[in-house]
Amino acid sequence: MKIKKSDFSEWYNTIIKEAELCDLRYNLKGFIVFLPWSVMSMEKMYKKYEEVLQKNGHRPAWFPALIPESNFKTESEHVEGFTPEVLWVTHAGDSELEQKYAMRPTSETAMYPMYSLWIQGAKDLPLKIYQRAQVWRHETKATKPFIRSREFYWIEAHDVFATENEALVQVKQDMEMAQQVLFEELGIPFLFFKRPQWDKFAGAVDTYAADTLMPDGKTLQLPSTHMLGQNFSKAFNVKYMDENGENKYCWQTCYGPAISRIYAALISTHGDDKGLVLPFDFAPVQIVMVPILKSDSPDNEKIISKCRELEKELSRNYSVHLDNSENTPGFKYNYWEMKGVPVRIELGKRDLDNGSVMLVKRHTCEKIKVPFKEIKKQIDNANKEIKDSLKNKSKEHFESLVSKADDMKSLNSILEKKGGFVRVPFCTDSMDGKPCAEKIRDETHGNVRGSLYNSKEKPKNEKCISCGNKAKIYLYVARQY
Amino acid sequence: MKIKKSDFSEWYNTIIKEAELCDLRYNLKGFIVFLPWSVMSMEKMYKKYEEVLQKNGHRPAWFPALIPESNFKTESEHVEGFTPEVLWVTHAGDSELEQKYAMRPTSETAMYPMYSLWIQGAKDLPLKIYQRAQVWRHETKATKPFIRSREFYWIEAHDVFATENEALVQVKQDMEMAQQVLFEELGIPFLFFKRPQWDKFAGAVDTYAADTLMPDGKTLQLPSTHMLGQNFSKAFNVKYMDENGENKYCWQTCYGPAISRIYAALISTHGDDKGLVLPFDFAPVQIVMVPILKSDSPDNEKIISKCRELEKELSRNYSVHLDNSENTPGFKYNYWEMKGVPVRIELGKRDLDNGSVMLVKRHTCEKIKVPFKEIKKQIDNANKEIKDSLKNKSKEHFESLVSKADDMKSLNSILEKKGGFVRVPFCTDSMDGKPCAEKIRDETHGNVRGSLYNSKEKPKNEKCISCGNKAKIYLYVARQY
Repeated sequence: MKIKKSDFSEWYNTIIKEAELCDLRYNLKGFIVFLPWSVMSMEKMYKKYEEVLQKNGHRPAWFPALIPESNFKTESEHVEGFTPEVLWVTHAGDSELEQKYAMRPTSETAMYPMYSLWIQGAKDLPLKIYQRAQVWRHETKATKPFIRSREFYWIEAHDVFATENEALVQVKQDMEMAQQVLFEELGIPFLFFKRPQWDKFAGAVDTYAADTLMPDGKTLQLPSTHMLGQNFSKAFNVKYMDENGENKYCWQTCYGPAISRIYAALISTHGDDKGLVLPFDFAPVQIVMVPILKSDSPDNEKIISKCRELEKELSRNYSVHLDNSENTPGFKYNYWEMKGVPVRIELGKRDLDNGSVMLVKRHTCEKIKVPFKEIKKQIDNANKEIKDSLKNKSKEHFESLVSKADDMKSLNSILEKKGGFVRVPFCTDSMDGKPCAEKIRDETHGNVRGSLYNSKEKPKNEKCISCGNKAKIYLYVARQY
Repeated sequence: MKIKKSDFSEWYNTIIKEAELCDLRYNLKGFIVFLPWSVMSMEKMYKKYEEVLQKNGHRPAWFPALIPESNFKTESEHVEGFTPEVLWVTHAGDSELEQKYAMRPTSETAMYPMYSLWIQGAKDLPLKIYQRAQVWRHETKATKPFIRSREFYWIEAHDVFATENEALVQVKQDMEMAQQVLFEELGIPFLFFKRPQWDKFAGAVDTYAADTLMPDGKTLQLPSTHMLGQNFSKAFNVKYMDENGENKYCWQTCYGPAISRIYAALISTHGDDKGLVLPFDFAPVQIVMVPILKSDSPDNEKIISKCRELEKELSRNYSVHLDNSENTPGFKYNYWEMKGVPVRIELGKRDLDNGSVMLVKRHTCEKIKVPFKEIKKQIDNANKEIKDSLKNKSKEHFESLVSKADDMKSLNSILEKKGGFVRVPFCTDSMDGKPCAEKIRDETHGNVRGSLYNSKEKPKNEKCISCGNKAKIYLYVARQY
């Protein structure tokens, strides 16, 4: 393995290959094959996210993957933003289609024409629908497995409300869902930003996003929420009749956690020089059992039989794999450590005689001797301990990467030396601020990520780090993926 | 509601609209929007099928939705079979692609080039991979929601073995999985056929399929398994080195349960004149609670409060919905009966005084008085009872629709009067038998579905129903969807 801290990018490229997370050899550029070990974790992530969405009043639907060109062109900013990346279907069999179809890069223009049919009165609101889906964007930027590819796996939630305020409350709920899943469950810390006006979703009024940090100090955008205002409801005629019999345009939000990208953050945040470190709830195998056998020893049968007994018992609550292959114990240790299995149980002759096993926790590599009777309890403990420990560790590291700067030189130096988020005083996050952001990018390779969601902090007598005019807002800068 | 028996097609079209299963108004022909009520059931079906596949040694992966034209054209029979229905992506943004991409109509040609990289030695076999995926086929036949559309939701399992015999054992396991999920879980009876040579999957050696019957006596193909032999392994160079160091082509099978189509069979098999009848395990809501209130009665609050108490208690084990809307109880009964919710609990003033509820089972509409303390137990019983009852009823009906005929006139008369499967003596299921099958289709609108899988029954002194030559095999005929 490559050392994670010193060369994250090489660590990442090595781990996705060694742990068999994906195969890059599919002969279509920007498209990859997701292998069982990552898919099994991502399925668990889907399940968790969908549970939380449903608890918050969302219901699942499946919309078509193809969008007729006429739908797609209805909202002008949106079409401008997405058209350069759209994959177009033009033929069926040998025949040219009368109208070309877009492979959805996102589903606003597939869903909202239906919403306009579904919503009549206030009783139809709020409407909160999500779908688990793949989307396709013919990216021109360099692709990176799980992080940016031409096909990705996400959930998109599209919500409709009678009032602006309800839509804004939804933005808050989306942020809370990110907190609940990303941090509480997956241990991925993030800051929730309101993006500057020059960096929002095509067609949105405002864009909010959860940004995490990768081990090299660069930021990665995770779920984002778009306050669409009435832009799309006007374009797609999504109206409701209020109590006075008046037709009003609805207020909309959309929310998109990209599961494959969150997986990239998961493995990067917790992984170490030995490989993956997976939280219990998202590990395809939670416990691996390694019997320590000696060639031709008469004890082998007893050891295996005890392993099978423990496997059966633990399988009631956990996903257990007994590695009975012909490889050496040392090979197995390395292999399953690389795969990130949270707990290993070793059982040899001496353990059997002692009535105990060696239990090894992946996240610390701590080895403890556990009597047979206490295994179940110790694993329950380990489950909780690992979750807490991963969260604490990642949070501490993350917080150490949030800094402040008030001149370009120190900004550049922080970004260069440790990366992370740097708070800077800034003139404005309206379109007028764009040249200042460009100057930052040119001088520091830093990208302005926006202001902290719902933050009350405001500069008093400070100057914009870029133009030197009076600073009205704090924005955060980071180098990005 | 339309009466199901007398006009199944109208019943079906009505129920998918009234129970809000899908919306046909998406403005792309052959593409529909799947609504929450059907999606929630289909997600449960996915989960069950995936559980069974994993238990049988399959692991999940995600392959790209797009297949380069060069892959697609590698197996000649396959390409001939699928090309007329392929949707082609030719442009990205404004640029024409160098090579066009097929939207997968099925994934052999996406997966097997990867398999050829993954498989080297005997230790890599068997390889058993599945994916949950959408596929696209630009059908020219009339589409019917859930049954045949241009986009459908399925699982495809693609397995590779060292020997022919292992591949044949997999066919048997696929049949058993169909039995386990389709019949044991969903209560959908079927016969498992080996298709005649003129009706097999493009590129396969043999095709096997589970065929069920719809209420009008027409058959619907459910999961099918294709014995691919070495056809694809030779085309895609899927080889392994055996213990003697010799390179050998692998043996392959693929298996495809179409979840959206199985859903069509589920609702059609069990539904009645009041609407859907869903088995407990596949109902989005398992118990609906209807409070019986009187306007301005002081008891209303007590009734609602008891309902909430029961809701909380039952929610521990079941998915419960308390319908506290302003509609009348009668409206609610009809509505939830139409949605197929397995159990309804009614609670009014008299019930409250008696310390009991009225429990109504959807499948029989039987109403029983149940003391508060026994509700949980009665619902556990109802769960099992409903499953058994649906299975028994559907099986009995199905078996009554399996007949025999030995001349064209009686075949036609059975197909005309009651439909179902009719066993007929036939000359051969090799390609030579095709004209005989065509004659049957011309004279009776019947379609030859094949021979019963693993059946030992053989005609002795009978003649082919079509050509009059010596009959060597029994084949089954049905009108089809």
